[in-house]
Amino acid sequence: MDTLRFVQQAPRRVNGPRLNGWLAQFDAIGRTAGGINRVAYSEADLAGRTFTLGLFRDSGLTPRIDTLGNIIARVPGTQAGLAPILIGSHIDSVTDGGNYDGPVGSFAAIEVARSLREQGVTLRHPLDVVVWQNEEGGTVGSKGYIGELTEADLAKTARSGKTVREGIGIIGGNVARIGESVRKRGDVACYIELHIEQGGNLERGRRDIGVVQGIVGLRWFEVTITGFANHAGATPMDQRQDAMLAAAKFTVAVHDAVRAEPGRQVATVGRLTVSPNTTNVIPGQVVLTVDLRDLDQTKIDRLEARFKQLANEIGAATKTTFAFSVLTDSKPALSDERVMEWVEASAASLKASYNRMPSGAGHDAQEIAHIAPMGMIFIPSVGGISHSPKEFSRPEDIARGADVLLNAVLAADAGLR
Amino acid sequence: MDTLRFVQQAPRRVNGPRLNGWLAQFDAIGRTAGGINRVAYSEADLAGRTFTLGLFRDSGLTPRIDTLGNIIARVPGTQAGLAPILIGSHIDSVTDGGNYDGPVGSFAAIEVARSLREQGVTLRHPLDVVVWQNEEGGTVGSKGYIGELTEADLAKTARSGKTVREGIGIIGGNVARIGESVRKRGDVACYIELHIEQGGNLERGRRDIGVVQGIVGLRWFEVTITGFANHAGATPMDQRQDAMLAAAKFTVAVHDAVRAEPGRQVATVGRLTVSPNTTNVIPGQVVLTVDLRDLDQTKIDRLEARFKQLANEIGAATKTTFAFSVLTDSKPALSDERVMEWVEASAASLKASYNRMPSGAGHDAQEIAHIAPMGMIFIPSVGGISHSPKEFSRPEDIARGADVLLNAVLAADAGLR
Repeated sequence: MDTLRFVQQAPRRVNGPRLNGWLAQFDAIGRTAGGINRVAYSEADLAGRTFTLGLFRDSGLTPRIDTLGNIIARVPGTQAGLAPILIGSHIDSVTDGGNYDGPVGSFAAIEVARSLREQGVTLRHPLDVVVWQNEEGGTVGSKGYIGELTEADLAKTARSGKTVREGIGIIGGNVARIGESVRKRGDVACYIELHIEQGGNLERGRRDIGVVQGIVGLRWFEVTITGFANHAGATPMDQRQDAMLAAAKFTVAVHDAVRAEPGRQVATVGRLTVSPNTTNVIPGQVVLTVDLRDLDQTKIDRLEARFKQLANEIGAATKTTFAFSVLTDSKPALSDERVMEWVEASAASLKASYNRMPSGAGHDAQEIAHIAPMGMIFIPSVGGISHSPKEFSRPEDIARGADVLLNAVLAADAGLR
Repeated sequence: MDTLRFVQQAPRRVNGPRLNGWLAQFDAIGRTAGGINRVAYSEADLAGRTFTLGLFRDSGLTPRIDTLGNIIARVPGTQAGLAPILIGSHIDSVTDGGNYDGPVGSFAAIEVARSLREQGVTLRHPLDVVVWQNEEGGTVGSKGYIGELTEADLAKTARSGKTVREGIGIIGGNVARIGESVRKRGDVACYIELHIEQGGNLERGRRDIGVVQGIVGLRWFEVTITGFANHAGATPMDQRQDAMLAAAKFTVAVHDAVRAEPGRQVATVGRLTVSPNTTNVIPGQVVLTVDLRDLDQTKIDRLEARFKQLANEIGAATKTTFAFSVLTDSKPALSDERVMEWVEASAASLKASYNRMPSGAGHDAQEIAHIAPMGMIFIPSVGGISHSPKEFSRPEDIARGADVLLNAVLAADAGLR
């Protein structure tokens, strides 16, 4: 294990204050009373991209915008014929979001490339620094990069009101030529993404670094529960077909089923609409969603079956009917064992505490995992808060995360065959 | 019990085909694709009132519009100094309602007066036939009649978009002089209202007639449940403050609490809104309503206390907080024992089957009960369906109900001291 010893003996460090300074400047772009609003293809997103292009150039990198609208810069390696090591993240935000989800990993990747140059280190592999476009709208840039962007994806309307197709033009891509940006297995040596953790596990477990085991698979159901709307005063309790009561029983049952077995699986009833939604009418229909996630695909399948069984039981007991449809289904994307080991070795060399954990949230890394060995580095987000103006990561945690990324890249460069 | 014997010996009958013919004609007024739309103060409501004024006149009655906008006609009695027997109902509808809720009782009252005249029967008491205005918007006409209409009531916007204040002017009342229409205890000898039942109990129990014991008291709560919105993928199940899970547990608990004791009490969670109401965000807040009704005020109080206790327990278990506010609180309005007996004697004389039952729905009778002995006669509504274009009562049930009203009026006229 020469590689590990190399990293342990000589951890390098980025310029943490510089990196945090960039983030502080970036905080002014798209800041509104409700939070950060750099939603994809908005004016604020364009301003953020201009700022980021400046960071690339100030750091001695030569960024280009690929036909998908992703920003990419390459640092050449010393050994001919090797595929690039790819690092980066995104800079777009959700509506009323924060300044850390995305920018931390994007700017850290630029800072890693800059620190390597300043410290006179040249890798064997080319180093590609990427800022993916429109992560929050469905990992659009990274999905396009692996050739999985569909016509339906292009037609989707982003939070800015622009379609993805329009958006790609607005940010300097070229929809007619997106095929030119597609990469296949073998084209990328490995991908490492630094990101804030969004669940508070690191904070609760008092760990500096999360070594991501993979991005959980996700299945979204829409469940339509049909009863019969009737007079809330005149209909006896035993004569009702109350869709809201059925929805309530189902919501509790889903929660109990998910917690009935060990593991990190999660399920959420996040959206629920009642019809007619009037105080004095027994609800005739409820439409709700279930968001189900786990790193193990078979557990997702098993829980789906269990939910449907519970729905049948509750439907029979409440004289209502349940209909399921799948809104979204994405398979778990597992990290590469070697990449996890390089991240662990890097963290250890920096005397950072760490543990392995799944990512419950989606990331661009889940797309790149389809064509290349993938790994992610998580740093703590205070209170586990994300997609919120309250989102915050400490400057020392951000600098440490970038340090871990830097040394993981060095380990990968040494370890990749 | 001379009175009862009199009624049992000589039941009179209305002209059932004529009454049902009026209802069939009335069905065309305000009929839309969605159902009957004769909402108070709308063009269709005005057309319905014009039609109804014609029925009064065709029946030899002389209708006047009181300053509240109620339509009233008096048939003089033979004995000087007696207060009137008051019969009637309303003709306005809900949005997308049916043709029976209100018109059945209104037209039956006109038909009773007409049949008495045709059959040469003159009562000792004056007989007042009334059509209350805007029942569906909060028993406005009958509430005004007992002097309980407030400035807030007058400022309320009806379903037609008009305020009650505007509406009273539109239908021929005079807001500045509504005091002239107010009646006090002693001004009305008794009030009897025929109405469709809205819960399906008569149909299920195979009874022709419901002898209403009273209109249930009603308390509406708005319950605000506050948790903490967070990422549905990244937040472990044991770290959530899920307002939707708390709302679901509460909805089930309210249902179970209401059904845990014998009786006809009902509670309904009819309105529920989730925030932010997004598939992949754990709900941070839910606002829901509970509609609680019973004929016994102490049971309402006891169940309210139980709901709050359950909310405390669920809040502690789910790390959420519950806040209650009362939206509406109306006390039970009990029927007069003698009026119920007259209705029962009338039904018996007609060989109609009957039983006593509470009214879970609100009616103008709940207002008049404050100033006079009150009773109501229910006839079956097919499937218990009401406030719906599917609302339907059979012609034979309508004629029978009018017959019961006619003979109950005769019994009251004989029995009242």
